[in-house]
Amino acid sequence: MSTSTAPRGPHRLESDIIGSMLIPRDALYGIATARAMENYDITGVKLSAYPDFIRAFAFVKKACARANFEIGLLPRNVHDAIASSCDELLKDDALHEHFTVDVIQGGAGTSTNMNANEVIANLAQRRMGLPLGDYSAVCPNDHVNLCQSTNDAYPSAAKLAVVFRHTSVVHALRELITSLRAKGDQFGGVIKMGRTQLQDAVPMTLGQEFHSFASTLEADLAFMQRNVDQLYEMNLGGTAIGTSICADARFSHEAVKALSELTRLPLQSPKDFIEASSSTSSFLLFSNILRRVAVKVSKICNDLRLLSSGPRCGFNEINLPAVAPGSSIMPGKINPVIPEVANQVCFQIMGADQTIATASEAAQLQLNVFEPVIVYNLLNNLKIMTNALNTLRTKCVDGITANEDACKKSVDNSIGIVTALLPLIGYKKASAVAKEALETGAPVATIAAKYAPAEKVKEYLKVEAMTCAGTIEARGVCLDTPPPPAEEVA
Amino acid sequence: MSTSTAPRGPHRLESDIIGSMLIPRDALYGIATARAMENYDITGVKLSAYPDFIRAFAFVKKACARANFEIGLLPRNVHDAIASSCDELLKDDALHEHFTVDVIQGGAGTSTNMNANEVIANLAQRRMGLPLGDYSAVCPNDHVNLCQSTNDAYPSAAKLAVVFRHTSVVHALRELITSLRAKGDQFGGVIKMGRTQLQDAVPMTLGQEFHSFASTLEADLAFMQRNVDQLYEMNLGGTAIGTSICADARFSHEAVKALSELTRLPLQSPKDFIEASSSTSSFLLFSNILRRVAVKVSKICNDLRLLSSGPRCGFNEINLPAVAPGSSIMPGKINPVIPEVANQVCFQIMGADQTIATASEAAQLQLNVFEPVIVYNLLNNLKIMTNALNTLRTKCVDGITANEDACKKSVDNSIGIVTALLPLIGYKKASAVAKEALETGAPVATIAAKYAPAEKVKEYLKVEAMTCAGTIEARGVCLDTPPPPAEEVA
Amino acid sequence: MSTSTAPRGPHRLESDIIGSMLIPRDALYGIATARAMENYDITGVKLSAYPDFIRAFAFVKKACARANFEIGLLPRNVHDAIASSCDELLKDDALHEHFTVDVIQGGAGTSTNMNANEVIANLAQRRMGLPLGDYSAVCPNDHVNLCQSTNDAYPSAAKLAVVFRHTSVVHALRELITSLRAKGDQFGGVIKMGRTQLQDAVPMTLGQEFHSFASTLEADLAFMQRNVDQLYEMNLGGTAIGTSICADARFSHEAVKALSELTRLPLQSPKDFIEASSSTSSFLLFSNILRRVAVKVSKICNDLRLLSSGPRCGFNEINLPAVAPGSSIMPGKINPVIPEVANQVCFQIMGADQTIATASEAAQLQLNVFEPVIVYNLLNNLKIMTNALNTLRTKCVDGITANEDACKKSVDNSIGIVTALLPLIGYKKASAVAKEALETGAPVATIAAKYAPAEKVKEYLKVEAMTCAGTIEARGVCLDTPPPPAEEVA
Amino acid sequence: MSTSTAPRGPHRLESDIIGSMLIPRDALYGIATARAMENYDITGVKLSAYPDFIRAFAFVKKACARANFEIGLLPRNVHDAIASSCDELLKDDALHEHFTVDVIQGGAGTSTNMNANEVIANLAQRRMGLPLGDYSAVCPNDHVNLCQSTNDAYPSAAKLAVVFRHTSVVHALRELITSLRAKGDQFGGVIKMGRTQLQDAVPMTLGQEFHSFASTLEADLAFMQRNVDQLYEMNLGGTAIGTSICADARFSHEAVKALSELTRLPLQSPKDFIEASSSTSSFLLFSNILRRVAVKVSKICNDLRLLSSGPRCGFNEINLPAVAPGSSIMPGKINPVIPEVANQVCFQIMGADQTIATASEAAQLQLNVFEPVIVYNLLNNLKIMTNALNTLRTKCVDGITANEDACKKSVDNSIGIVTALLPLIGYKKASAVAKEALETGAPVATIAAKYAPAEKVKEYLKVEAMTCAGTIEARGVCLDTPPPPAEEVA
Repeated sequence: MSTSTAPRGPHRLESDIIGSMLIPRDALYGIATARAMENYDITGVKLSAYPDFIRAFAFVKKACARANFEIGLLPRNVHDAIASSCDELLKDDALHEHFTVDVIQGGAGTSTNMNANEVIANLAQRRMGLPLGDYSAVCPNDHVNLCQSTNDAYPSAAKLAVVFRHTSVVHALRELITSLRAKGDQFGGVIKMGRTQLQDAVPMTLGQEFHSFASTLEADLAFMQRNVDQLYEMNLGGTAIGTSICADARFSHEAVKALSELTRLPLQSPKDFIEASSSTSSFLLFSNILRRVAVKVSKICNDLRLLSSGPRCGFNEINLPAVAPGSSIMPGKINPVIPEVANQVCFQIMGADQTIATASEAAQLQLNVFEPVIVYNLLNNLKIMTNALNTLRTKCVDGITANEDACKKSVDNSIGIVTALLPLIGYKKASAVAKEALETGAPVATIAAKYAPAEKVKEYLKVEAMTCAGTIEARGVCLDTPPPPAEEVA
Repeated sequence: MSTSTAPRGPHRLESDIIGSMLIPRDALYGIATARAMENYDITGVKLSAYPDFIRAFAFVKKACARANFEIGLLPRNVHDAIASSCDELLKDDALHEHFTVDVIQGGAGTSTNMNANEVIANLAQRRMGLPLGDYSAVCPNDHVNLCQSTNDAYPSAAKLAVVFRHTSVVHALRELITSLRAKGDQFGGVIKMGRTQLQDAVPMTLGQEFHSFASTLEADLAFMQRNVDQLYEMNLGGTAIGTSICADARFSHEAVKALSELTRLPLQSPKDFIEASSSTSSFLLFSNILRRVAVKVSKICNDLRLLSSGPRCGFNEINLPAVAPGSSIMPGKINPVIPEVANQVCFQIMGADQTIATASEAAQLQLNVFEPVIVYNLLNNLKIMTNALNTLRTKCVDGITANEDACKKSVDNSIGIVTALLPLIGYKKASAVAKEALETGAPVATIAAKYAPAEKVKEYLKVEAMTCAGTIEARGVCLDTPPPPAEEVA
Repeated sequence: MSTSTAPRGPHRLESDIIGSMLIPRDALYGIATARAMENYDITGVKLSAYPDFIRAFAFVKKACARANFEIGLLPRNVHDAIASSCDELLKDDALHEHFTVDVIQGGAGTSTNMNANEVIANLAQRRMGLPLGDYSAVCPNDHVNLCQSTNDAYPSAAKLAVVFRHTSVVHALRELITSLRAKGDQFGGVIKMGRTQLQDAVPMTLGQEFHSFASTLEADLAFMQRNVDQLYEMNLGGTAIGTSICADARFSHEAVKALSELTRLPLQSPKDFIEASSSTSSFLLFSNILRRVAVKVSKICNDLRLLSSGPRCGFNEINLPAVAPGSSIMPGKINPVIPEVANQVCFQIMGADQTIATASEAAQLQLNVFEPVIVYNLLNNLKIMTNALNTLRTKCVDGITANEDACKKSVDNSIGIVTALLPLIGYKKASAVAKEALETGAPVATIAAKYAPAEKVKEYLKVEAMTCAGTIEARGVCLDTPPPPAEEVA
Repeated sequence: MSTSTAPRGPHRLESDIIGSMLIPRDALYGIATARAMENYDITGVKLSAYPDFIRAFAFVKKACARANFEIGLLPRNVHDAIASSCDELLKDDALHEHFTVDVIQGGAGTSTNMNANEVIANLAQRRMGLPLGDYSAVCPNDHVNLCQSTNDAYPSAAKLAVVFRHTSVVHALRELITSLRAKGDQFGGVIKMGRTQLQDAVPMTLGQEFHSFASTLEADLAFMQRNVDQLYEMNLGGTAIGTSICADARFSHEAVKALSELTRLPLQSPKDFIEASSSTSSFLLFSNILRRVAVKVSKICNDLRLLSSGPRCGFNEINLPAVAPGSSIMPGKINPVIPEVANQVCFQIMGADQTIATASEAAQLQLNVFEPVIVYNLLNNLKIMTNALNTLRTKCVDGITANEDACKKSVDNSIGIVTALLPLIGYKKASAVAKEALETGAPVATIAAKYAPAEKVKEYLKVEAMTCAGTIEARGVCLDTPPPPAEEVA
């Protein structure tokens, strides 16, 4: 027997090429899983934390069993037992507790695949009234894994899991966009100063600002939906390295057909199975997409925190809902804790994307053995992104209010409106107006009246008109007021 | 006068809101550029190192001039002078030496935009027989920059530059793919061991391996071409923050139309100009695409170096062309220096992508002021990627030869072929065969004959058949040879 | 009452500036924690997963209570109750279940600090026979948090937690180094080819290779120990922003003194409390140190996988212990799963370091509000690094064996030994020997005898002598055999 | 002859194991360099862009020649010629133009080492009156490279270059710190609101803020100086893989001694030469140190931009010097372009650090062949960091002024001062005061007088006292005013 200490409680004995091990009597997993539990004590996070991944495996194994039945490799009763076992996994999350392997594991996912094979084989054995762990009727390798390798079953299940899970991000993004649009509409009449480089620039509405938040996320939503098809490639039938060794020639077609039916997704086989075996390209792609969302959500959170800075010594243009007392020492302080937590999720996702890229680059020859760390990080990113988006929407965005007066006052008070005079008096004179206004504190309109009729100036300085394109009259700027002559110096 | 020391040689004097400066008499740039030269002494790399960027600016400024002429804001002679000046920049790279600003600069690209405005204005002045720097007929701000801001002109030009430049990557990728495909065809008959996790797995052909390299890059090529349209959005007319202040309502449409005609690209205006002003989303997307190519090219280079390891103490399956003596001390050593340099370019691109993501996240409110570092890194990545792909193809891939005998011998010698017996004798017995073969050194076929008729074994062990899917017979594995009984332990 | 739904089971009511909430009757936490649970539903990982962090808080709060007692701000009975409660937390991990806040949270750790304040206050109340949640004798803010802010208590506890936890990495590193050294000694007599750029270079011993693994980690161990003092700075007494508002002038000194006594660490106050409040510098430093260990451990794992590649078609110099059947389809395949899992942990750590750097850069003004994501990732990195190092040692390194014959044969067979002739015949002739050997397959010694006496050649080609520095004779290379004349070409 | 096209102008012919090539007649480099120029056309940046690196090579080669002379391997005249040639390189930067290899190159730096060997050999030949490229008296491999390999000479020179170059960062950091301290002193009397989480917190002085900037950089400066010794390890004498093949046993000692004398640095040999050959640990360390500086400088720049936001609609606490008109469209706008450019340099350095970490992890067996991309990025980071720090200091920090009135007004106007009442009235009541102040706009003092004697309140609200620790009186907070009773709910 190998090095492991015996588990407490009743057991059964299973064996493999390495030796034999005691398995808890009622465990649905078997010796391959038990070895993995012993070998990989890393994060403390088990596969069961990602139910979509387990469901994806159930779909894959069910589809493969159906394909094997169709091409005559599995007898009906074995097929039926496997299919029903997969259905159990799909329906009953309580069974997921038998997926006990650490999410970070060696072996390119073999332990995960074997965990699934063993649980399904044992469920089938039990269903047939046979003992767990005896595999006399349904064997994890020869039946559940028939015509498969980890190297095709695992990435197929992982891609499906990402597809399943991405819908929650899509949903959360869409709802956040809707909320931001609603705020955009609500704040359509709130005039405020736009800022570039944190300096007062020109007027805009707060509604435009919130609409821009919505628009930028919409672009990502569209991009995500446009490219999710990159995950639809299932290399089932490629087996060990993509040469399809041990797989019947009809298998890949039948398996992908069955899987498409079961999942109602337009799945397809790769053109190049060898390539598909070693590439984690579509995971990296999806990670990149999420990172880009993270980059944008983080920027939006930064803006929300900036716009709500204050209440007295900041921009103070908006109020975020108070969800907690802000400080253990400063009474009455309310902090933007919801954007702050969303920011941090974004940083987490950006770092995890780095892990995924590093692991992707480390593929060697016919396999990327580092798929587990890739898949784990991607599934986790999908999960925390969903949570962060929902949290941001429900606990922050939906409750934002505007400080209309403060917004208005800042525009009235600003020098940036001088830009609107550009078509009237040109860049050089307008610069002079701005400089004088800053130095003297005199209103822009008063100073500008030195260079153009006061009436005209007044017309050009209507703030509302500044927030959208208008009609510019032709004029001869520069020409009428020559700049200081360019002197030539020796 | 401000702090700068006077340049040597003849000068002219220019002034702005800050003060006045001496400019070299024949410089086509003006005071805004001169200030930037003084302010940004960072990398030593000037804008002129990226001619596509300068050409992109020439297109943008020409299109804007045409739009302004069409809507009546620019007189014909000023338009003509500007347009001709832009044409000069498009034709004559020697003029690029007047683009003297450091590629990393503050101000969101204002210095770059002003450098373009000033060079074009001075070219126009010269063309009209007027002195440089006097701007009496053509003013950088009021004419060349008319209805524009840096915040629309700069990202528009930058996107165009990326589009222009990406074609060289597309071209280089396509040629590399063709070379890899050719090698795939050439090596179609070379049987070798496939490896997963660096361990002998099952047989394949060297041709399949090279075809997989081609396939994986094809996926990226397709993705790049599918998504390049994300760069076609030109926010011209949004001006300072996307509200279109100072831009005529007709301008954005006319300018994009003119720019589409000039560049023959299906460019379009954004739906949300405010969003477009602060978002660097499409740059980040394109950087991600390049990073993914880098991840894959690096993996291919790693494989080429591994497959050519040796000559005596490594895998030694292929030979890379010798392009240089490998060592200053080890005579006769030839090293895989070309894949090595390509690997390093990939690392460089992966790091630069990090810079781009970090800078993208740092946008604030109505602008991302860090566009210069984003654009510089992206343009540089496009350049070094192109060079690396071309170098890899011409100096390495095209000259690769196969060590057919070594490849064949490794298969004959291997245990991995036992996998092919799976459909015949099942996983458990096949494992026993493998174990015995490894321990005794006896051939797989001999040992397997204990479990199945020798003739059948021989048939299943035909190596060529292992490199593609075949026909698997139904059989009852596990059932005929019960595994060790599962004992129950108290 | 605020938005939360009532918990099931018996409750008590608590209130704060926002409103009131129902708290499970027996919960040791209070309303601040309850709000955080409601606000932050992100990762599903609770503070209780990091017991060292909770223990660190217990030390900090105990030390602060002692300091407040010493300077007369806390009556003895309140001090005693707080101190005893802290001792309970230090002794009884079961109490940690009351630390229920998500590890990623907004608010710069306020929720974590308040969770600690509340649990300690309630433990104290209970100890005094008073109801939970009434805080009539011991109040979370006014007593447990007295003279403190989250912004000093939280980073102080976090640094302590890192110091506590880093000892397990130090221990694991040291044990791994010892194992590697033992293998180095064991393999001291195994001659093999060294490789540079994956090409055969010159001979070395396998022992030297394993010693180099040990040496490289020793450098990191030393560096870690040399710089752990960067974590000894405790900004207790700085309160909200480092100005020490609400803290007695004697407090910081007394608190750090007490904390030093309790932890037996040479802790000290910062010179600049303002700086200390916003800087996460020492966390980033420690993350960098771990990343460097990860970079090296990953390289070692890559090497182990490479050296054990095979068994027939690879380098096959060493054997890693078999810990699991390698494949769900390839019988008998044994894979290097332990180095593989360690590699992935390294990638995870490298990505998390990115998160930490990004979050560190995002500090603003007087605080880095993103400390929670920094601290979580750092503590997690310490945990998985410890696990990975221990796994690598016990399940892999300790059981490695050498294939002495294969190692020897590769040297005998190699051309790289020609380098040893450099002092005898110079670079040019030695290159010619190498080239001829590669092309003809003839032994190096035979060919070299054309250029130098056979006896001399034999002496220089003694392999054992090549693995360490020897005595080089003076000679006149280049001079005695003029190279091909340098012709001048028009 | 190999593939290269003949250079224009007069030539000479050189040959190596691959073939022969035409070299420009007056080129100081030779065929190894010429091959590298042909092979590596990647970045367009040549070695000559990093003069410190070339000088470091001159020192290394001079020291090695001296060591070889001391142990009798080089005749005096050859030694003298090499030494004088090295001196030429040290004195005359114009000679650097012969270092023509691309900074990103394959071959682990062999091309760089050979470029140095060839230039020095040819300088020596010329000095001896012999033709360039004939190497009859001084041969690049056999004399200049004697007892060396690229794998020891290259990293030794690279480390020296980093040491040389780091002094400029140290200098720039120190000067920036001095400037920040001076501003700290200058602004010591400017009272302002401190902010945490962008929300008004408690008062501080602007001087404290600038001192904290200085302090945080001082920590890095100290850390850099404390750990620069990690670069003092010179593996000269290890030759190809660290076994010292072809190096005399006395060489490493003599070479390091000579190099120490020449550079006046306390250099030493590594304990483990094998480890030293493949490790890039000290480069990664130094890159990490720079990244940490970048993280902090970026935070400081973010703060400067935030504090100077406005002029009317922002924090407006400080004014940065105007160094350029800010906008091509917005007249009079002045932007914080200097912090912006410094931010971007920081992002660049952070990304390059990623490249360095990735390349470091990619070492294999006895060498890290990716040293060139590591060294290039590190030297470049040192260069741009120096430039950014100097730019930030001279063009921004030195000229910052305070808006004393605005700072003062924000404190007077704020609610955050309520924190100072904590010792007087406790957290709950103070919260109530804050809430009422925010809702009614009434002064804090007025409201607080409901809970404590107005005189006491006034005393506690003295702003100046809030910026440093004071004396807190013992009191019985919570006890005197029982909180709302904790009700039990079914």
